Parts: sequence; C-alpha cells; structure tokens
Amino acid sequence: MVTSSVVNTYPLSSYTFGTKEPKMEKDTSVADRLARMKVNYMKEGMRTSVEGILLVQEHNHPHILLLQIGNTFCKLPGGRLKPGENEIEGLKRKLSSKLAANSPALQPDWQIGESVAIWWRPNFETIMYPYCPPHITKPKECKKLFLVHLSEREYFAVPKNLKLLAVPLFELYDNVQRYGPVISTIPQQLSRFQFNMIHP
Amino acid sequence: MVTSSVVNTYPLSSYTFGTKEPKMEKDTSVADRLARMKVNYMKEGMRTSVEGILLVQEHNHPHILLLQIGNTFCKLPGGRLKPGENEIEGLKRKLSSKLAANSPALQPDWQIGESVAIWWRPNFETIMYPYCPPHITKPKECKKLFLVHLSEREYFAVPKNLKLLAVPLFELYDNVQRYGPVISTIPQQLSRFQFNMIHP
Repeated sequence: MVTSSVVNTYPLSSYTFGTKEPKMEKDTSVADRLARMKVNYMKEGMRTSVEGILLVQEHNHPHILLLQIGNTFCKLPGGRLKPGENEIEGLKRKLSSKLAANSPALQPDWQIGESVAIWWRPNFETIMYPYCPPHITKPKECKKLFLVHLSEREYFAVPKNLKLLAVPLFELYDNVQRYGPVISTIPQQLSRFQFNMIHP
Repeated sequence: MVTSSVVNTYPLSSYTFGTKEPKMEKDTSVADRLARMKVNYMKEGMRTSVEGILLVQEHNHPHILLLQIGNTFCKLPGGRLKPGENEIEGLKRKLSSKLAANSPALQPDWQIGESVAIWWRPNFETIMYPYCPPHITKPKECKKLFLVHLSEREYFAVPKNLKLLAVPLFELYDNVQRYGPVISTIPQQLSRFQFNMIHP
C-alpha cells in the first residue's frame, strides 16, 4: 500500500484504451439488486466492497476514471470482496476484472494507495452514510474507496457494454443529482492531496 | 503532528467548559469581510487559514465542536495565519485564542493531527472549492482543516459572545443549508477514520 500526500498524475493521453468482452450487471433492477444483497447477507454476513479512484489529468486539473453504464449511471471500478479476502488484493482483482486485458502480461501495475472514504449501508436500501448511523449494530454493507496510483503508461481494456470516462473534479463537485452522494463528494475527500501534474 | 487512522474520542462530559471575554468578529457584514480580505491580500498575498476539527462522543457517535455566533452561523475554531507562520503552530495559537483560558497553566494540550481537507477561494467572494479551479493562478485564500486529537480531560474557556456546540456527524451530513459546504462535508472526510469511543 502506497501512502503519500503528493499524488503524481499523468495526462489522459499517456494511457491506451481498448475493449474486451461485456461485463453485464448481475441485476436488472434496483429491487433485484437489494434482494440479491439480502440473500448474500444471510449466507455471508456484511458485504464489504472496495472501489478505486484512478486519477489522470487534463488541462492541469485532476480527472477521475468512471465507468458509465447506459447513458446516465456512473460507477467507480471495483466490487464486492469474497468472504475473508484481503481488501487490497480484492481491489486489484476487481480492477483487473473491470479494466485489464485478459492477458496476464498486460495487467496494469495497480498501486493501491490511501483509503479516502468509507460508506455504510444500514439497511437493504439504496441509501448509504459516511458513518455507521447510531443504533445500527448490523450494517449490511461497508464500502471503501481507495486512491489508486497509476503508472505513467498503462493499457486499459474496457468491457464493451461500458464506457470509461475521465470526469474532472469540478464536474463532480456539488453534483449529487448526476453522480450520487458517494462520487460527488470525492473532490472534498481528495482536497487534502497535492496533485503533481506530470507532463512527460 | 499526530497521524493515525484510529481516533480516540472521549465523552463530552469529560470536558469542562467555562467562559472568557468576548472575541468579537472583526467585520459586521460579509461585504466588510471581503473588503478587508482584499486589503490584506494587497499587503500580504494569499490568505492561509487553518481550522481545527475537535471530536467528542455522545451515545457512541462522534460529535464536532463548533462555535456558534448569534443564533445561526456556526464555524470551526481557527483563523488566519500570520505571514510566514507555521500552520501547526498557527492553529495551536488560534485554538488557544478561541478556546483556552487566559492562564498559561490552563492551555489544552493541542495535538494537531492529519489534514482532512483543503478549500480554495478563487476570488474575493464567499464561494470556495475543494480544489483550485482551473485557470485560477492567484487564489485569494487557502483554508486547511486539521483533525485535533483531544486528551481525555480539558478545560475550555468559551468567549462570552459565542456558544460552543457539540454537533453529531449525522446532523452535519447532507445539511449544507444549515452548515455550509465546508462543515457539512466533514462527515465524508472523516469517514476513513476509525473512531475508538472511550468510556472512562
């Protein structure tokens, strides 16, 4: 794990993007998703999910890589840990599943950095909080967001049903309507870092 | 400087509160404040301010100490650094000015922890951003928020014109109307910490 208050960011043009086979969402509706969450909770207990904040820069301003599903919904790359799985290893596995080519030779060098936020789901509902609410003794999900330090050059393979977007911090900020509470407050969580914009 | 992802918090009842002479605001209106900021900028360049996040707990939930002016406006304890002043020393000086008794023997043991957020004021206006907006080469203010680790027992002397409130994270969260953009997103910035609630 790499921790530093200085984060090197490279231009979007440093990276190469290809495609790979689609990664379909497991659920076709929010209701299905919450029902599956409940079934998994009965089997395995609290769900722990991990997501990565991958930064690039354009015009000297940090941008975050988001996966867009359809025309509106955006998410960070990541996903659910297996029971007992280490969170750093699990995040690397999930990042590769979402963004790496299938060839083992083309795996990006995922450098997982600091935890920047933790969100809690108290009930089998969509709403999450940046703390475990008082009187909730059995939260249903804990979601951790980590900074991922990208190397200067990488090849990303994006599932064909998804689009990979580089979204500037100023677009995310104060835009809960478009990006939801988790993604729209990433700019505030990253504000303590100093971004070292590298122009190779 | 103390940095740790585990933060010990003690009950509000561990602390003793007294009063001291009033600390009046230097300005009586927002317009006056922005005008004074402009005058100071001409003399000294970018304003750097530092503020402290002091945590206590009640009912096993973290609360933040806020100073209330009048009946509505709340602020974190802190203030402007002198030109060239070290930010940690400057924050200790400001915390003592706002919250310590006048006697040197009664100064709290201010343990300044991690920087949790940095906000930028691009122009002589009230709006601030959690990044320096693109194309702004001369921001007018940089405000840094630090975690302050309180000891188990302290005596705070609150200026008579102010009220010191312990506000729960769940009250701050998603409450920009009441607390403004800086204070209302502190819960998200603190979410990565684990709070160790100590019951002496």
